[in-house]
Amino acid sequence: MNSTTSLATTPFLSAHDVATIVQRKGLDACLRGMADAIHADFLRWPEFDKCARVASHSADGVIELMPIADAHSYAFKYVNGHPKNNALHGLPTVMAFGLLADVATGVPELLSELTLTTAIRTAATSVVAARALARPNSRSMALIGNGAQSEFQALAFHHLMGIQEVRLFDTDPLATAKLADNLRATALKVVICASTAEAVRGADIVTTVTADKTNATILTPEMLEPGMHINGVGGDCPGKTELHPDVLRAASVFVEYEPQTRIEGDLQQLPTDFAVTELWNVLAGTATGRSSATQITVFDSVGFAMEDYSALRFMRDTARELGLGQRLALIPDLADPKDLYSLVRPTVLRAVAPAPLPETIAA
Amino acid sequence: MNSTTSLATTPFLSAHDVATIVQRKGLDACLRGMADAIHADFLRWPEFDKCARVASHSADGVIELMPIADAHSYAFKYVNGHPKNNALHGLPTVMAFGLLADVATGVPELLSELTLTTAIRTAATSVVAARALARPNSRSMALIGNGAQSEFQALAFHHLMGIQEVRLFDTDPLATAKLADNLRATALKVVICASTAEAVRGADIVTTVTADKTNATILTPEMLEPGMHINGVGGDCPGKTELHPDVLRAASVFVEYEPQTRIEGDLQQLPTDFAVTELWNVLAGTATGRSSATQITVFDSVGFAMEDYSALRFMRDTARELGLGQRLALIPDLADPKDLYSLVRPTVLRAVAPAPLPETIAA
Repeated sequence: MNSTTSLATTPFLSAHDVATIVQRKGLDACLRGMADAIHADFLRWPEFDKCARVASHSADGVIELMPIADAHSYAFKYVNGHPKNNALHGLPTVMAFGLLADVATGVPELLSELTLTTAIRTAATSVVAARALARPNSRSMALIGNGAQSEFQALAFHHLMGIQEVRLFDTDPLATAKLADNLRATALKVVICASTAEAVRGADIVTTVTADKTNATILTPEMLEPGMHINGVGGDCPGKTELHPDVLRAASVFVEYEPQTRIEGDLQQLPTDFAVTELWNVLAGTATGRSSATQITVFDSVGFAMEDYSALRFMRDTARELGLGQRLALIPDLADPKDLYSLVRPTVLRAVAPAPLPETIAA
Repeated sequence: MNSTTSLATTPFLSAHDVATIVQRKGLDACLRGMADAIHADFLRWPEFDKCARVASHSADGVIELMPIADAHSYAFKYVNGHPKNNALHGLPTVMAFGLLADVATGVPELLSELTLTTAIRTAATSVVAARALARPNSRSMALIGNGAQSEFQALAFHHLMGIQEVRLFDTDPLATAKLADNLRATALKVVICASTAEAVRGADIVTTVTADKTNATILTPEMLEPGMHINGVGGDCPGKTELHPDVLRAASVFVEYEPQTRIEGDLQQLPTDFAVTELWNVLAGTATGRSSATQITVFDSVGFAMEDYSALRFMRDTARELGLGQRLALIPDLADPKDLYSLVRPTVLRAVAPAPLPETIAA
């Protein structure tokens, strides 16, 4: 690998690189930058070529591909959801990576980890929606589900929306203890609760971010209070819901991309003519968000490819700014693009110098 | 990075690694191994969860994702097709990479270049089809389109099917000269022709592997001769065809995955009730392939995700055998999978040691 920029050498951000970016830049600044990027991209929603993600379901989980493109950049994310991974394998429930590419040539422009990045972009998206939908004076948030994404939700709402108190509940008390411990160094007031109902009581915002692949009813109608905003993050797969259908019926429901949310969101429980509003319309001012202080709003979030597009571009720009990242020979570098065979031609000195091999794959 | 195998460190085969594999193992052996793997996987066709690939079209080309899974392994390929890349940018028309993952956990098991690998797998697939469809005593092949994939087609048919003579034509004489030069060291007799008609005359097999994104008619009915087998490789995208529709009407047509070929293959020119046979049925003995020495057969090949699944597994096994490849921190390695925040926790010694950074991304 030489030091000149080659179209055929792809910038790569490993999990270590992205962790370093977040540590150097600050999680606060990353959440803020990501939220701004996502908001800006929502405002140019019609420019994107969109589709519902492509899911491959199995007994234990799902593996999904999430492509999207505008006129210049193509992005996709690989992401899994395996709720039993923690308990059975000591592995994360959600793991991801993704790519940015040039629409004009198909050349990959960035390969990046997206596990950590997804947690940040999901929390940033939650805030983008809550800024438009929650009461502006919201100060307390219930956080139901205290797993891998919960710190990012708590800190995004704290830093970007002024949430002062988080009320925690998880069926796994160790997860709650971990979250409370991670939040100890912040100015957030942390209240550990014994049930969802206790956590939700009096909260301005309710964030549900649970992992079970079941039709759960984490939130039921009797828990609702006037003016609440519900940030439903964990109901994001066919057969995986968190909200009782009557919670949706009692609220105004906002979604990312309607065709995908009808399949994957809590919305899957309701008839296809149940009215919802796409968030981008609210941000663009072409639809009403919250219309009164007593209205109940639901952001039925499932995660949409555009948010990963925004996140990948934010991370690419930040990596450049900090001089971080590596390069991979993902694509062959050919002197004559029609002479792919030159790579394997016997007895001829190849034009491509082999890259250093830091480590071989164990057999 | 340590030497123990970690679930969170993904084996990676760069373009250099795969070129080294092919050079060490021999292209002949790779084509043979890949053809055997593809044939074996076609025989268990019903075990795969299949879908047509997901395409994002733009003015200059297409970017596609091709996912597939069986009960154990998930695979996908990213691949572009930009016919003007050679002339405008000095870049390959087709570039690709892909992934193998564990269905049970979603953990990535191999990230690999697939540009070189795709050329090998496409040629291997062509031979798998031709073994079942061409006359067994076929000795000469016309090769129309002498670009990046043409050497692989010529050598696959030479080594695996006994083709002794190739008859070359391309609208770009330099491409033909390059192909002829690359084949000089082999036992193949090379005949350079002045037109498609001249190349096709008397050939037992006709392989079309052109790149234009147009409804071209490379092959017209008057060129057909009794008993010919046509291996149509380049007509693989909506609006990108190679065969006059009457060529298909004069022949028995075989396809990989019918729903995808109806969209992308030369078949897109014919009504949806035009009868075709899926190749796997012929291989499994549940459908008839060639029924006489005078019948004209067409393999309307577009490239199907299963072939990449087979190719990725073949390359993974061969890399292990040769001790080649690298490892990437594509996924974070977490002591507690619910504690993703540990990666970015301020002022605390992180459990994950940063990987060496061989090179920074140029700003």
